[in-house]
Amino acid sequence: MLLGILEIIGVISFGISGVLTAANRKLDYFGATVVAFFTALGGGTIRDLLLNTEIVWMQNINLISSAFGGAVLGIVFRKHLYKWRSTLFIFDTIGLGLFSILGMQKGLDFGCAPIVALMLGVISASFGGVIRDILCNRIPLIFREEIYATAALGGGILFLILHHFNWLPQLDMLIAVLVIIGIRLLSVKFGWKMPNLKNDEELENDGK
Amino acid sequence: MLLGILEIIGVISFGISGVLTAANRKLDYFGATVVAFFTALGGGTIRDLLLNTEIVWMQNINLISSAFGGAVLGIVFRKHLYKWRSTLFIFDTIGLGLFSILGMQKGLDFGCAPIVALMLGVISASFGGVIRDILCNRIPLIFREEIYATAALGGGILFLILHHFNWLPQLDMLIAVLVIIGIRLLSVKFGWKMPNLKNDEELENDGK
Amino acid sequence: MLLGILEIIGVISFGISGVLTAANRKLDYFGATVVAFFTALGGGTIRDLLLNTEIVWMQNINLISSAFGGAVLGIVFRKHLYKWRSTLFIFDTIGLGLFSILGMQKGLDFGCAPIVALMLGVISASFGGVIRDILCNRIPLIFREEIYATAALGGGILFLILHHFNWLPQLDMLIAVLVIIGIRLLSVKFGWKMPNLKNDEELENDGK
Repeated sequence: MLLGILEIIGVISFGISGVLTAANRKLDYFGATVVAFFTALGGGTIRDLLLNTEIVWMQNINLISSAFGGAVLGIVFRKHLYKWRSTLFIFDTIGLGLFSILGMQKGLDFGCAPIVALMLGVISASFGGVIRDILCNRIPLIFREEIYATAALGGGILFLILHHFNWLPQLDMLIAVLVIIGIRLLSVKFGWKMPNLKNDEELENDGK
Repeated sequence: MLLGILEIIGVISFGISGVLTAANRKLDYFGATVVAFFTALGGGTIRDLLLNTEIVWMQNINLISSAFGGAVLGIVFRKHLYKWRSTLFIFDTIGLGLFSILGMQKGLDFGCAPIVALMLGVISASFGGVIRDILCNRIPLIFREEIYATAALGGGILFLILHHFNWLPQLDMLIAVLVIIGIRLLSVKFGWKMPNLKNDEELENDGK
Repeated sequence: MLLGILEIIGVISFGISGVLTAANRKLDYFGATVVAFFTALGGGTIRDLLLNTEIVWMQNINLISSAFGGAVLGIVFRKHLYKWRSTLFIFDTIGLGLFSILGMQKGLDFGCAPIVALMLGVISASFGGVIRDILCNRIPLIFREEIYATAALGGGILFLILHHFNWLPQLDMLIAVLVIIGIRLLSVKFGWKMPNLKNDEELENDGK
């Protein structure tokens, strides 16, 4: 029940993040709605395509409504979203934690190897944003800014360890979700970043 | 029979539109052919992937030939295409109407909820163009210019209503296709556009 | 056995090519790893999605390790990769030849028409690079530079002919792979290129 509510909050806030990116590319209402939808549900879509199974949202009107709800909220309250930045950030982070671990669990349920389940978890939670950025013609944000998918990776590895040794069996998912949320919050607070690769020019200058 | 001919005309004209976009990015013959192919058949491919079913063109040599035929026509007659602009526009619009409603019908046949069928119809008809634009590294045209997918949406909703109440059961598909074509033609004639979202800069200027 | 080793070499070198592109876009370690992974295994992923079958790497830890191995090698030895350019080029070309023909064979095994099998072969070998370029926000290299996928096409057509007439049944795959490698090497050595389409501006200037 709480899980269902958190899931819907996550989908809505992913949808709103889609609208924000769409707005900065000056998309129209239709484009913003499409981008919002696939930001919200695209990660799970790729997970389900890779698992060669039914796409979850195709059978789930709640998810569809939440994604379109996020689009509408984002478009209607476009002007006021900056006031809600911190709240949206928290909701987005809850979505990141939740969808990572739920995606991993689905992978494990389908009999995937742990590393594949881990990848599916990261994909579920973060590839909606990758699709968003591709549709808006920019390099995916999670590939070069901030600790985002890496937080999902960290919590996911912890989940695999807890799961493997059957430690804290009732609490393992909750702990992993909280760890992902914690890593993400700390990384933003302290400005942690992954190192970037050097391009050819920089490499040459290094040699001088 | 007529349906089959219209379908082939639609696929060919979608393919030609792929060549035109490819040309303006200076792709080579191979690139233009690939872009043409996925412009023509990419929308149906995504629909079938989402339905977790066989991809239609994989089993249908006519569709494959039409898509490649469009590519070849586009490449060979590149110089003369501007003379055929109006004809191509009409054929493209027929494709839009036809593939929307056929895509919706397929969704309904697979037992999808009406809103999912509607989405599948819009995807069938317009996401070939989205793939085209992503392959050519630009923001999808249908996300910020002209009424295109929105016409499909309008005719699609009408189709769902006719279908639901079983009104005009023999004619519902034809009427919906004609409505899509009509909306598209009128929108181009009168320059109708969807409102665009404002980016951050414009929002700030609004505040001043 | 040799086939398995060559396949791993191909995957690793595709992965390294992903890191190189990622570096020139200044992606971080996470982004470079994701791009490397899908450069290495994305072509086969699209092939398997189109065939509506299990994604091969999801069940094959060797492939996953090779792809991530390529990512790690590329990131760690970033500075020294230019010294290995020729070796990497050879390995990449072996991968091109091998994955094309293996992809075609898989298509034929699934009962696809020859032209569909040919397309699946080209997709297997070259669409990893298409995904790499889309993730890095550039027009796919194989769409406008160099003979790459076209080499796969050439060897693939030869393979279909040998296969159809049952000529050299033990050697047909090997010959086709070698022909692809040969076309690719010759095209780079002699700077062969596909003609590019003219954009609108050039067409106009032609008219003057």
